[in-house]
Amino acid sequence: MKFGTVAHDGGTRAAALTDDGWRPVVEPYAADLSAFLAAGGTLGPDTLLGEPLDGAEPLAPLPHPAKVICCGLNYGEHIRETGRELPSHPTLFVKYADSLVGPTDDVSLQAGTDVDWEAELAVVVGATIRGADRATAAAAIAGYTVANDVSVRDWQYRTLQWFQGKAWDDSTPTGPVVVTPDEVDPTAGLTVTCRVNGDEVQRDSTATLVFDSADLLAYISTFTTLRPGDLVLTGTPGGVGVARDPKRFLADGDVLETEIEGIGLLRNTIRLT
Amino acid sequence: MKFGTVAHDGGTRAAALTDDGWRPVVEPYAADLSAFLAAGGTLGPDTLLGEPLDGAEPLAPLPHPAKVICCGLNYGEHIRETGRELPSHPTLFVKYADSLVGPTDDVSLQAGTDVDWEAELAVVVGATIRGADRATAAAAIAGYTVANDVSVRDWQYRTLQWFQGKAWDDSTPTGPVVVTPDEVDPTAGLTVTCRVNGDEVQRDSTATLVFDSADLLAYISTFTTLRPGDLVLTGTPGGVGVARDPKRFLADGDVLETEIEGIGLLRNTIRLT
Repeated sequence: MKFGTVAHDGGTRAAALTDDGWRPVVEPYAADLSAFLAAGGTLGPDTLLGEPLDGAEPLAPLPHPAKVICCGLNYGEHIRETGRELPSHPTLFVKYADSLVGPTDDVSLQAGTDVDWEAELAVVVGATIRGADRATAAAAIAGYTVANDVSVRDWQYRTLQWFQGKAWDDSTPTGPVVVTPDEVDPTAGLTVTCRVNGDEVQRDSTATLVFDSADLLAYISTFTTLRPGDLVLTGTPGGVGVARDPKRFLADGDVLETEIEGIGLLRNTIRLT
Repeated sequence: MKFGTVAHDGGTRAAALTDDGWRPVVEPYAADLSAFLAAGGTLGPDTLLGEPLDGAEPLAPLPHPAKVICCGLNYGEHIRETGRELPSHPTLFVKYADSLVGPTDDVSLQAGTDVDWEAELAVVVGATIRGADRATAAAAIAGYTVANDVSVRDWQYRTLQWFQGKAWDDSTPTGPVVVTPDEVDPTAGLTVTCRVNGDEVQRDSTATLVFDSADLLAYISTFTTLRPGDLVLTGTPGGVGVARDPKRFLADGDVLETEIEGIGLLRNTIRLT
């Protein structure tokens, strides 16, 4: 099944995307999917749904995760293009809920910065875990969504720590839906693509991830508690702009499309002001 | 003035430490200082206080900041001991609210890891800022508290990104009070000390910080919004265990004391299980 957060009738609702369009989840009632999961809601076929919401439009599905943890250097080809060896441990950094925007929102960043794309599979946590083994971590996956870990490269590389290039407000499109694990299997392989003004710049399969979703949730849960609604971004394939020769960055007005097979498409305009 | 969050009568309260002991803030009523600041409360002489709370004991003053941002490599001597040059930009990484414990709580980490001390001045944000200049950032400082950025060095250095060695749950003591800027001036210089089982291992003055509190808030606010109750840790002086020869790490049962002149003392026992 597919779930999300939609704008409808001047407000927002947690909802499921069905053959009849978007239908609101009704138990527990929730203004968004973050609130639904925090209140103990589960994403699945037993979720009670109301009547279709006419004219509903998807927003960022998880508007206020307490933790947005990202893995870098997780696709073999992208690791090679950065000149590094395959890692023994995941490289982790963070974004904030403030970083997130929805599937058709503008990505708003500062003019004069080096803005780059990073198409990524994102995992939505559905249970509270700490010290989880791989099986427990796998069972704690509520679903998968699409994200673009848009990065401000000059700030990312000002110091040894990437955080200040990764956690800009309104930088990271997510959505349009969260697909439950019975419908998609990233470990078996989903095609991830990124396009800039229609030119394909990234394409790879999630089957080539060094650390898969369950690996990442288990590893992170060793040191910090993950809770329903938290997001884990799994890393980006080869093809980023900073690794090109010459380097290529996003310009004001560029249209960034991020797509994952079986999940959906983000289409965002870059605004550099 | 000095503010904090106290345990009292089976619950918790936001409170001020006065000549009459801990007195609760009453408008807005708040279970802790995070909630008080989030509700628009301000820390100052006009804050309305109730009758003294008999037997109140200080807890982590800010139990649930949305953002806990830390600066590394910010004291000249500590930078030199790591073999680096003085930085042009602050090196930033994060912890979570889950990382924080109170002034007398145990620091609980995993046996077999390399646990190290980092005594630090922490800044409490008192206003919402984005894109703030230095003066605006300075005016947004609600107060200062003491923190120890206890670090799991083997995890910190597993990859290029320090986050996984910095964001362990229950690792970071804070408190005992938040002192308002009219009472202490870190830029003029406050002595920061750290002791392990009574042996002094760190001592420096906050006057030697490369980036002071206002610099850090202004810089961070370029890329992300800071809000009342958020915490910024300003970095640690020289003397950390990993930079010693031989290296020295904390053992189960060690008593870690962290003190800043004019603010107060944290006294925490290390538990490695």
